[in-house]
Amino acid sequence: MSEQIPSDICTLYVCTTCRDAADPGEGPRAGARLHDALAAALADRPEARVRIEPVECLSVCKRPCTVAVSSPGRWTYVYGDLDPAVSAAVILDGIGLYAGTPDGIVPWRERPQEFRKGVVARIPPAPVLP
Amino acid sequence: MSEQIPSDICTLYVCTTCRDAADPGEGPRAGARLHDALAAALADRPEARVRIEPVECLSVCKRPCTVAVSSPGRWTYVYGDLDPAVSAAVILDGIGLYAGTPDGIVPWRERPQEFRKGVVARIPPAPVLP
Repeated sequence: MSEQIPSDICTLYVCTTCRDAADPGEGPRAGARLHDALAAALADRPEARVRIEPVECLSVCKRPCTVAVSSPGRWTYVYGDLDPAVSAAVILDGIGLYAGTPDGIVPWRERPQEFRKGVVARIPPAPVLP
Repeated sequence: MSEQIPSDICTLYVCTTCRDAADPGEGPRAGARLHDALAAALADRPEARVRIEPVECLSVCKRPCTVAVSSPGRWTYVYGDLDPAVSAAVILDGIGLYAGTPDGIVPWRERPQEFRKGVVARIPPAPVLP
């Protein structure tokens, strides 16, 4: 990718392919609805240093809906079991806490319940390249 | 992290905290045994552009053993359900295929069975920073 991103921005990846068991045959999938809800919620928070990037699949297909949050120098976290109808605000709240830490590790008891129960994986910060 | 890593190196994170149900009460855990097996297998492949980094927890505790592979410009993959007694060589084979792609996406049918069944999540390459 050649896009230039300021280093203090958190990237929120949202799987738009996630399908909920209750999804109707027609219309946007649960993942696409979560993406739209997050974009709308983010528009109401102009101070948030977050960019949303839709992704075709995060390979967490058994735990829809799924997001990942990443930021230079911080751990990457993947979360599943999110609800497109109600989770957008709590996801952005959680990312705000994440952005307030030097390494992305929010103390356990401060994490939203959705992040505690929904954690799928975490990956250390990328090593510094020459 | 301030370590300087050449950009063509793949980083293999290995959770050393993973505990297998069959683990004895004493002795190294399954994750630590997988780490040691990978380090030994890598020593036999001096041409491999892989560095192994032990990690205390990758938060995939329900699917031991767990690893993640990451590389600049490539997708990051997380895999679980790995067996410390037999998986080391196939993991390194799979990373060799990964390293041979521009974006880290190995065609499905070329992937080791362990990676097909064990995939936990994938995360897009980090955006380029100014």
